[in-house]
Amino acid sequence: MAGGTDEVLAALRERVPAGALLTDPDSTGRYAHDEAEWAPFGKPLAVVRPDGTEQVAAVVRVCAEHGVPVVPRGAGTGLSGGANAVDGCVVLSFEAMNSVLEINPREQLAVVQPGVVNDDLRAACREHGAWYPPDPASSPWSTIGGNVGTNAGGVCCVKYGVTRDYVLGLEAVVGDGEVVRLGRRTAKGVAGYDLCGLFVGSEGTLGVITEITVKLLPGQRAPERTVVGYFDSLVEAGEAVAAVAAAGIVPSALELLDRHCLEAVDAWKNMGLSAEANVLLLGRCDTPGAAGEQEVDALLRCFDQAGATWSARSTDEHEADALFAARRLAYPALERLGPVLTEDVCVPRAAVPEMLSRIEAAARRHDTLIANIAHAGDGNLHPLIITEPGDDAARERAQRAFDDIVADALALGGTVTGEHGVGLLKRAGLHAELGPAVVGMHHAVKDALDPRGIFNPGKVFGDPAS
Amino acid sequence: MAGGTDEVLAALRERVPAGALLTDPDSTGRYAHDEAEWAPFGKPLAVVRPDGTEQVAAVVRVCAEHGVPVVPRGAGTGLSGGANAVDGCVVLSFEAMNSVLEINPREQLAVVQPGVVNDDLRAACREHGAWYPPDPASSPWSTIGGNVGTNAGGVCCVKYGVTRDYVLGLEAVVGDGEVVRLGRRTAKGVAGYDLCGLFVGSEGTLGVITEITVKLLPGQRAPERTVVGYFDSLVEAGEAVAAVAAAGIVPSALELLDRHCLEAVDAWKNMGLSAEANVLLLGRCDTPGAAGEQEVDALLRCFDQAGATWSARSTDEHEADALFAARRLAYPALERLGPVLTEDVCVPRAAVPEMLSRIEAAARRHDTLIANIAHAGDGNLHPLIITEPGDDAARERAQRAFDDIVADALALGGTVTGEHGVGLLKRAGLHAELGPAVVGMHHAVKDALDPRGIFNPGKVFGDPAS
Repeated sequence: MAGGTDEVLAALRERVPAGALLTDPDSTGRYAHDEAEWAPFGKPLAVVRPDGTEQVAAVVRVCAEHGVPVVPRGAGTGLSGGANAVDGCVVLSFEAMNSVLEINPREQLAVVQPGVVNDDLRAACREHGAWYPPDPASSPWSTIGGNVGTNAGGVCCVKYGVTRDYVLGLEAVVGDGEVVRLGRRTAKGVAGYDLCGLFVGSEGTLGVITEITVKLLPGQRAPERTVVGYFDSLVEAGEAVAAVAAAGIVPSALELLDRHCLEAVDAWKNMGLSAEANVLLLGRCDTPGAAGEQEVDALLRCFDQAGATWSARSTDEHEADALFAARRLAYPALERLGPVLTEDVCVPRAAVPEMLSRIEAAARRHDTLIANIAHAGDGNLHPLIITEPGDDAARERAQRAFDDIVADALALGGTVTGEHGVGLLKRAGLHAELGPAVVGMHHAVKDALDPRGIFNPGKVFGDPAS
Repeated sequence: MAGGTDEVLAALRERVPAGALLTDPDSTGRYAHDEAEWAPFGKPLAVVRPDGTEQVAAVVRVCAEHGVPVVPRGAGTGLSGGANAVDGCVVLSFEAMNSVLEINPREQLAVVQPGVVNDDLRAACREHGAWYPPDPASSPWSTIGGNVGTNAGGVCCVKYGVTRDYVLGLEAVVGDGEVVRLGRRTAKGVAGYDLCGLFVGSEGTLGVITEITVKLLPGQRAPERTVVGYFDSLVEAGEAVAAVAAAGIVPSALELLDRHCLEAVDAWKNMGLSAEANVLLLGRCDTPGAAGEQEVDALLRCFDQAGATWSARSTDEHEADALFAARRLAYPALERLGPVLTEDVCVPRAAVPEMLSRIEAAARRHDTLIANIAHAGDGNLHPLIITEPGDDAARERAQRAFDDIVADALALGGTVTGEHGVGLLKRAGLHAELGPAVVGMHHAVKDALDPRGIFNPGKVFGDPAS
């Protein structure tokens, strides 16, 4: 309805300064999707870059009145289409709400606006002798708001947990535009339902988060020791991962990179990794003192007993940092080869070898290239399915491999998404994982808190066929 | 309606064996309330001690059909009235569902029925080289189901978090008696809303939990070092607590006991503590090696600079254990003096000295005896208001002191309940803390997931005047 559209735009213009409101398609198109290129996206009616909570509330009030979808968006680094525009929606983009409002080492908390970049918060904390652990691979670009929306994970969560474990409180715009505070600033608190935790990972479907209070840890950490293992096969590396879990070791990182990743990084950055190994396991231990040394020894034993062709503790800090930099570069390096369909399954630790074997089988069965990066220590695997640009048949084969991997993860007792979120790409998987009764509970909660159905509609548990 | 009542009882008798169904008032009366003696409680229509999930579902189906309230109950050690019977309800008591179903150190998880006693789970984990951290003071008696319902805390949560941090998954009976599984068995997972986390701490108002999957940590811990500080005044001990937080130290325990507690324990167990100190701070550090020694030194410095009359690391393990045993005995020791109205406020760590000062002022103002136990390290204070049995005027003064302490905690940026839950006693405080918009979100979620309003009605955010 063009008339309705004009009315909405007029109402937005009344409430939002011209510089914060984008309506021409060239501009709004840049905000229409995240990095899940395979996911569909619509055309936004407008993009608003609010300067504060009041402006967000004003926009939500307009959208609630006119039944216009609201799609919140961080840096657009998501990999599931969660921030993709819905036709006729207003995208709320938080680049202008990027202030760290408080860092309080005494209370071990920080308060930030949603547009603060993860690495910027982490750097600000360091200056105050504090540490914000969640470290998704996108940390140089992704925002805390996006991290909270998707309950982002990262490298250190094998020991230190995920974003939800660090969100103490939220300010959000809900319903018809009411501003509410959920959660708390104290170390503990059980006054009522954990609505704060419910919002974390809800991918913008329950309201718009406008401020976040996160828990911090002390910044004085023991130096991390790095352990490297080379393996001939994915499955052997997976056996090492399962052995680490069976030995009761909790490393501060345990990452896996396969041959395709190493070759892609080498082709881009000339690091010479692929000449050394087929599969690389990178472990870190931050337990201080002699106990940390024992952990390193135990990790090396697990690597060796699983058949590592070479293993060692890294004595060169620069070398160790370079290896973890390679881990971070693997995804963009692979993207240079063609469109990447990113998986994010998480399986029980003991099932890691079997899951890696099934991923290899899926690649063979569907004649498609699958590279593997993994937060292996917590069973969170990222098979990356890569196709030639423009090869539609390959794309269909890739989609079938994607579906098989999701089914295999569920068959092994895993989940369809460990840390990237459901967005649009994993909706069918979510339905298969949760079943109709639990999906029904999702609809009930969504309808209760978003009775007009304006907040990021269709995402997460929406009809996958839509 | 007697006719309706007979019909309900007949339906229960059809589905529940005679030995698992109690209906005579002498028997059901023993299940009518928890340890919050000051909270009102009604008369149950029946008590069912189910032997498994199917029996729970059968009972819930009967109750849903007839609109009968369902009140789940663990060991009845709650201190807020959350498990108190509602008139005409069916109490579900889980003593017969007390099996540890799985302990899996490799996946770092355990699966238990709700009636498993906390200490029993912890002992079973130890046998498998694993550790379940949450350790409420009631751990010898309280059940995991009750711990999950209230999101219980404990001594070690200053470093290791509360029950919610350890609940991976749940089986629950919801709605009209459907059995659902929420959460997961994997280390990470973001498929949909965190409904599992929403159920934790919901005090039975959203459904009945019938199985719990908890996360474990490795059992090999470094030996804990114990640090003791004696103080002349509560406020000085509070200053020490704030100094520990400001120094960025995270002890594995930091507990406070005041003169009234020490005297009550001495009177009962003749430990001679009250001759030594007015206020006792007990700290523990479990960081291994030299770093742990540095933590101990730093703790002692904080104690001394805040004015400790004596401080030392305990070199005698038995002495250290005895001091922590005194901490656990303090509550039952005080109960011997008369009815205890238990507070559970949690304030920012820096506000601990001011809050302790205000508690002393409330005791003076209302001429009432207030003893203080505290999980001081996370700002969670338990002022215990004690009256002579049968002294109604004292009881009224105690209630006014209780209300003042809640108001003071909110004024200092705290919460009305850190770990005991809202139940019946803290409903007014919850309304004051959350405000109408957030309470409205609670009602919306409750109505969405419990459309018949049968699950523990009136608790948590119900009308405090009812």
